[in-house]
Amino acid sequence: MADSDSKSKPWGGRFTESTDAFVEAFTASVGFDRRLYRQDIAGSIAHARMLARVGVLTAAECDEIIAGLEDIRGEIEAGDFDWSVGLEDVHMNIEARLTERIGATGKKLHTGRSRNDQVATDMRLYLREEIDLITAELERLQGGLIDLAEREADTLMPGFTHLQVAMPVTFGHHMLAWFEMLERDRQRLADCRRRVNLMPLGAAAMAGTTYPIDRHYTAELLGFDAPAENSLDAVSDRDFAIEFTSAAALLLTHLSRASEELILWTSAQFGFIDLPDRFCTGSSIMPQKKNPDVPELVRGKTGRVNGHLIGLLTLMKGQPLAYNKDNQEDKEPLFDTVDTVRGCLRVFADMVPAIEPKRERLRAAALEGFSTATDLADYLVRRGLPFRDAHEVVGKAVRLGLEQGRDLSQLSLEQLQQFSGIIEQDVFEVLTLEGSIASRDHIGGTAPSQVRAAAQRARQRLSR
Amino acid sequence: MADSDSKSKPWGGRFTESTDAFVEAFTASVGFDRRLYRQDIAGSIAHARMLARVGVLTAAECDEIIAGLEDIRGEIEAGDFDWSVGLEDVHMNIEARLTERIGATGKKLHTGRSRNDQVATDMRLYLREEIDLITAELERLQGGLIDLAEREADTLMPGFTHLQVAMPVTFGHHMLAWFEMLERDRQRLADCRRRVNLMPLGAAAMAGTTYPIDRHYTAELLGFDAPAENSLDAVSDRDFAIEFTSAAALLLTHLSRASEELILWTSAQFGFIDLPDRFCTGSSIMPQKKNPDVPELVRGKTGRVNGHLIGLLTLMKGQPLAYNKDNQEDKEPLFDTVDTVRGCLRVFADMVPAIEPKRERLRAAALEGFSTATDLADYLVRRGLPFRDAHEVVGKAVRLGLEQGRDLSQLSLEQLQQFSGIIEQDVFEVLTLEGSIASRDHIGGTAPSQVRAAAQRARQRLSR
Amino acid sequence: MADSDSKSKPWGGRFTESTDAFVEAFTASVGFDRRLYRQDIAGSIAHARMLARVGVLTAAECDEIIAGLEDIRGEIEAGDFDWSVGLEDVHMNIEARLTERIGATGKKLHTGRSRNDQVATDMRLYLREEIDLITAELERLQGGLIDLAEREADTLMPGFTHLQVAMPVTFGHHMLAWFEMLERDRQRLADCRRRVNLMPLGAAAMAGTTYPIDRHYTAELLGFDAPAENSLDAVSDRDFAIEFTSAAALLLTHLSRASEELILWTSAQFGFIDLPDRFCTGSSIMPQKKNPDVPELVRGKTGRVNGHLIGLLTLMKGQPLAYNKDNQEDKEPLFDTVDTVRGCLRVFADMVPAIEPKRERLRAAALEGFSTATDLADYLVRRGLPFRDAHEVVGKAVRLGLEQGRDLSQLSLEQLQQFSGIIEQDVFEVLTLEGSIASRDHIGGTAPSQVRAAAQRARQRLSR
Amino acid sequence: MADSDSKSKPWGGRFTESTDAFVEAFTASVGFDRRLYRQDIAGSIAHARMLARVGVLTAAECDEIIAGLEDIRGEIEAGDFDWSVGLEDVHMNIEARLTERIGATGKKLHTGRSRNDQVATDMRLYLREEIDLITAELERLQGGLIDLAEREADTLMPGFTHLQVAMPVTFGHHMLAWFEMLERDRQRLADCRRRVNLMPLGAAAMAGTTYPIDRHYTAELLGFDAPAENSLDAVSDRDFAIEFTSAAALLLTHLSRASEELILWTSAQFGFIDLPDRFCTGSSIMPQKKNPDVPELVRGKTGRVNGHLIGLLTLMKGQPLAYNKDNQEDKEPLFDTVDTVRGCLRVFADMVPAIEPKRERLRAAALEGFSTATDLADYLVRRGLPFRDAHEVVGKAVRLGLEQGRDLSQLSLEQLQQFSGIIEQDVFEVLTLEGSIASRDHIGGTAPSQVRAAAQRARQRLSR
Repeated sequence: MADSDSKSKPWGGRFTESTDAFVEAFTASVGFDRRLYRQDIAGSIAHARMLARVGVLTAAECDEIIAGLEDIRGEIEAGDFDWSVGLEDVHMNIEARLTERIGATGKKLHTGRSRNDQVATDMRLYLREEIDLITAELERLQGGLIDLAEREADTLMPGFTHLQVAMPVTFGHHMLAWFEMLERDRQRLADCRRRVNLMPLGAAAMAGTTYPIDRHYTAELLGFDAPAENSLDAVSDRDFAIEFTSAAALLLTHLSRASEELILWTSAQFGFIDLPDRFCTGSSIMPQKKNPDVPELVRGKTGRVNGHLIGLLTLMKGQPLAYNKDNQEDKEPLFDTVDTVRGCLRVFADMVPAIEPKRERLRAAALEGFSTATDLADYLVRRGLPFRDAHEVVGKAVRLGLEQGRDLSQLSLEQLQQFSGIIEQDVFEVLTLEGSIASRDHIGGTAPSQVRAAAQRARQRLSR
Repeated sequence: MADSDSKSKPWGGRFTESTDAFVEAFTASVGFDRRLYRQDIAGSIAHARMLARVGVLTAAECDEIIAGLEDIRGEIEAGDFDWSVGLEDVHMNIEARLTERIGATGKKLHTGRSRNDQVATDMRLYLREEIDLITAELERLQGGLIDLAEREADTLMPGFTHLQVAMPVTFGHHMLAWFEMLERDRQRLADCRRRVNLMPLGAAAMAGTTYPIDRHYTAELLGFDAPAENSLDAVSDRDFAIEFTSAAALLLTHLSRASEELILWTSAQFGFIDLPDRFCTGSSIMPQKKNPDVPELVRGKTGRVNGHLIGLLTLMKGQPLAYNKDNQEDKEPLFDTVDTVRGCLRVFADMVPAIEPKRERLRAAALEGFSTATDLADYLVRRGLPFRDAHEVVGKAVRLGLEQGRDLSQLSLEQLQQFSGIIEQDVFEVLTLEGSIASRDHIGGTAPSQVRAAAQRARQRLSR
Repeated sequence: MADSDSKSKPWGGRFTESTDAFVEAFTASVGFDRRLYRQDIAGSIAHARMLARVGVLTAAECDEIIAGLEDIRGEIEAGDFDWSVGLEDVHMNIEARLTERIGATGKKLHTGRSRNDQVATDMRLYLREEIDLITAELERLQGGLIDLAEREADTLMPGFTHLQVAMPVTFGHHMLAWFEMLERDRQRLADCRRRVNLMPLGAAAMAGTTYPIDRHYTAELLGFDAPAENSLDAVSDRDFAIEFTSAAALLLTHLSRASEELILWTSAQFGFIDLPDRFCTGSSIMPQKKNPDVPELVRGKTGRVNGHLIGLLTLMKGQPLAYNKDNQEDKEPLFDTVDTVRGCLRVFADMVPAIEPKRERLRAAALEGFSTATDLADYLVRRGLPFRDAHEVVGKAVRLGLEQGRDLSQLSLEQLQQFSGIIEQDVFEVLTLEGSIASRDHIGGTAPSQVRAAAQRARQRLSR
Repeated sequence: MADSDSKSKPWGGRFTESTDAFVEAFTASVGFDRRLYRQDIAGSIAHARMLARVGVLTAAECDEIIAGLEDIRGEIEAGDFDWSVGLEDVHMNIEARLTERIGATGKKLHTGRSRNDQVATDMRLYLREEIDLITAELERLQGGLIDLAEREADTLMPGFTHLQVAMPVTFGHHMLAWFEMLERDRQRLADCRRRVNLMPLGAAAMAGTTYPIDRHYTAELLGFDAPAENSLDAVSDRDFAIEFTSAAALLLTHLSRASEELILWTSAQFGFIDLPDRFCTGSSIMPQKKNPDVPELVRGKTGRVNGHLIGLLTLMKGQPLAYNKDNQEDKEPLFDTVDTVRGCLRVFADMVPAIEPKRERLRAAALEGFSTATDLADYLVRRGLPFRDAHEVVGKAVRLGLEQGRDLSQLSLEQLQQFSGIIEQDVFEVLTLEGSIASRDHIGGTAPSQVRAAAQRARQRLSR
């Protein structure tokens, strides 16, 4: 980055000494906000067109400015742009270069706007685009989950509560639980996008401007739904960043939950799935290790996004209107949240289709832990016992099973009848895994036919 | 609360020793979840009706259960209910009492459900209702802001950026900035409500149930939009609590910003407004004090809600499916967030109409700080100077003003002309406060006519 | 709580209307700060003694005040005290009652102090006492870990990284890892206590007082190390609450990690330990369930404390000096943090001695996952291969083992020699679990003799 | 950064396919952890010396390794080092380069250690050094505050509670309140440093190593106080990062409070101080603006550090032992916290000596808001009125003052006597600002002599 002394401040008129060198570096944002150059230039072009339409610029001036800005974009993309810390931010860097290139006309571009509304506009353009890219990755991941769910709609596995075996479920059903979490994330991102897509430009410093600007026209050029309603709010609002980061924190929380399960499932003790080598890494010291780095790292990144959320909320707490310098601190957490979410979704979307359930091991695990005890209770209820009494009967049968090291289905009819005389031979049908899952046959239940139907509905929802 | 030893656990069948006394108290939730008794009973009544419809209960059993539950609700509301820590939670307390009252039929109520889906249903019913109550308070506050904005649409005050005087604005314009913040909160709560209003009931423990339940019917009885799609997700999802708390954190952040301004404005140094004595308190030692306790406390409560948000996000991070005991920790933060938001909105809605701007003091303050400097720059631009050059010219004039202790409008024409020969006598019109605000006459700008039009649009949006 | 209208405000002189009823309830703290009554009375007694010593009170007045305060303490503890919301807080409630009991002399107690320094003093007295109680529970838990470590110093189990089997360790070694985490917590609490134990009293409202107070004497009476150095800081500082809550958040984070392991270890898949029934609960629907509620709930409570930490940090952010009403929000998070930490430590201290490692299952698990692969690499290094090359050799042997479903120790010498000719018969000694752990024989290593020595050192550190 | 395909993984033996390209980039840490190169090389040199001492390396091998590592450090510092993402992290990049440079001997360096203990050692060395640098900046800032306090020990200003004028204080007294906050931070950093300065090296992967290492020797070479006590804890502990970040969050909270006051004080409404132009910046649109960017930005950065704290706490929550990949996420928040704290302290330490109190304006402000009302109450108490009654009398006098627009000292004796007959002519002495501050003459009070004495004690504490 170029030395700052070479360029003079655009606001220096009333100042009697130049900025302290460390203060200049400490307060500059160009180190991170230059990431917004495309949005900044797009916003400036729309602003120039609008100024021309309302007569503040001539058509020729407008053309000159647009050509200049496009050349600058080219310079930046070619790596030929000389960023200056002394010019503070992306806006001033580009504007100063414009004047350097096209002369005095460049100085007219800033008419009727301020950096306060400019940066808010850049941020919203940026975030709108990123939400669309994130949504695309999210949908790819959701699609992968539906495919996996359909493929494994009949694959038996133990369902857990409290990490204790609860009831048999199907692997497909489990994958659709992940889908549901992510579907809420998708909705939240869409809701957030509506609130992002409003245009601050025209608020100027904070009170609006004396030029006869046409905000509806600029909004249309930039694809915004409408201009923001209040100039004071427009320059100081950072809700869009916070709301997005909230949505991202929930999304990462969901991925952390899926990650936790992937980590458990690849352990020697569970051994429920295989992850291909290409998603794992080894150890510098232990030659046998194959570690599930991807889900571990995703789980770890949850903290990062939670942290950014708190960072942004803390930032805005108690700020009086309108723009304060504090707001500059909105960028790094937002950028990092965007990068984190996109990266995690991408790697998950790549990985999910490669998950290989170990079907025999899963089935064996479902046979442990008395997973069909509830089916026995329901059997007793169907034969007339109130549920609470049936629960008590089965609890005692389980205690016997524990003592003898046997599952309920491995106890004899006589043994079971000790606890309730109404048990008959047909009880062994309800104690099978297949019987258990097939009987949970209602919307939301784990019966394979329900899982297939749910997968189909999921696909339809995704395509809407 | 009653002693726990008197009632036996409903799940004791397989256990060989009774629960440790401290563990019992440590893990019990009835101390706080009994707040959900109305929702729990409503959910049970709907569940019983559904069980009767599908033939699991007889009509007579159903009636008996419903009558019993309604009696229990009466007992609770009369303060005659004997809550037991030994029965762990609101669900078991009510169910045990039901069986005590109506006998064995009471034991049939829990057929086809689990506390896992039951508590999730209770929570959603509770939150749906609270969102509606919160929205009502919010709209009352927003209405008060619109009224105030219209009343003070012409009241001049300094607008600030960086807490330095920036440009004149109107008090009404400022109030509408607060309105806009809250309007986004209102939208977010409505979006959140859609995701709250789905029914977990029927998910049972986590895999669904073997009984022929009709979840659409139960959903209809309880006013839910639909049954939740996946049983594993339904019992473990706490997104609704997190999303609501996120929305609440932003809402409180907005109130904290308004509070900060009210605190500043009532200080001796600003002196912009008066708050009636009934919203203030005094000091035990300093007899002259009149403190703006209400906005201070609201500002402080922001931390509380941010904290609950982090509490809930941390709670869910890395939890494997499905229900885990950790989830019991969702209630206290959610309840406290609801109470905090409702209380803060209520007190703000009461207070806002009583704000009395001190118009003369506000006008005087707007005359300080060179608030019309930008108007001068715009004047120069209209006479042909590029904006950047105009900025430089005015900066120098400001420096002279500072040296002489005079505002720009107090400099002589000759003095102003030193900096630019194109300045003429008509400059003094643009340097007035009234000229300045009137000229910001576009959507979002501070011109009084724009403020009035914005207030009207705000009223329409609110009524939609 | 008594109706507020019956008592008049102690600061009402300059006010022209009475406080709004909802504002009164909204701003009152007596609902939660009355918990500080013992500290408040102790502080008042010390303050009265000091005032008598310096001549502001007569000896008789002082005695009268002290007797009155002690009677009030008796009333409160007998449940006979009539708390009033209208009197706002614990301080005014007690002072008003004192005047009611002893007449005009009671009005002299507040001489030379303010509620601002009074509440800060109460909070510090409270927290100091709680830190001592928490430390006692913590040490009981640490003692239990040392006992368990000694008992299981030879018990083999797999050590994990990335939840993949890494190397064999001993159960005792693992328990001492938990001890170390908690030992840092113990140190942090002691460090925190030093900063808690300074006395704000005497700062009065914020500038000190005009009475000839003797702060050293009051500090001595209350067991404080010294008076706080600066009056502005003394009334506004809440570092003590934040630092304590930080330490508590780390402590809970440690318990959450131990909890996660206990939950894993009691799962059917790991099956590493048994927890007695008295620490577990069952399911309302699944008769076989025995859930590790205690560690689950402790894990969940981590979020709660993290939340309080953020709540307190957010509270103080950007507050100008000195006392602001926001600070009232310090109490509930601090009280709840204290209760949470004490409860979690108590239940852990009770539970840890009851943990029963299932030694055979642990040993069997240590034999899975090629846990001695690193030992083979080290064997090769001792025979001259550079470590990196040895790692490569063993990696290939592991791949063969995976293909054949055999551990390294189950491969034949010929098979092993395929990968490196320097392997000889004695390799099978290093591939045993016992050989592996015994060889990690240095400070911090898992060799049983090291574990025993570490346990002894731990006991010594604890007694210091 | 170099392409990854060119170098092979050091752990590839057991793997059958190469790492997915995106996974490689996603999981690599070299992009940020190469910042640790100096610590990594220092740790490796000490490790090599120790290995030579115990006979694992020959003296010649050791020398070769050390020379190689020092050359690599030179390469890195000259910008000639070719960092490879494919080699994952700083450790493998340096080790691979070492082997490239010195051949097979390089492969022996990793004997008896793992990246798990290596990275924990690097982090602690890094943080220890940074704590020392931060403490130096902190002390420079504290020194500046003491100087300012002494310079302005007599400068009158209004003290505030609730941002309402409370009592007169001196500017020096206020500066010492800031000093006290920072002094606690200094202590906390010192306490934290003791827990940072323990050596994980020797824990190897997590169980220790089979080589006859001498951990005390390595610890001594690296300046650590002692080796860490438990290998499982040593590789998984990140308390040091969390505790440091907690301390940093409090430190920033203190700076945010000072910043808030600087921002208030430079506003037109307060006008209490001047900040030199070199610490301020202007506006791109409003030519008159001089904004206090530095304190605003520091205030904003508080959120950033609070966020990192939550990020780290969330990261560790519920992690089973020992090392998990999640832990890689500890670095960026820690690095950024260090940079933020150092930057903020530096800019504050530069700025504080340049603060110019506007003494006349401060004095005038202290005369507003009835700042000596408490002095009047104390006067009445000295004449025999109980404090509570005196408070009531003064409250009524204030009400009269408010109605007449006069301070208490501007009321006539007759007017004052209306409220209490015991008021005499000498009352006007206690109503002066000078009388007020001089009378708060005890440790911690605002009397100028006390402020000077406190400044002296502060200087002594700082030098300890």
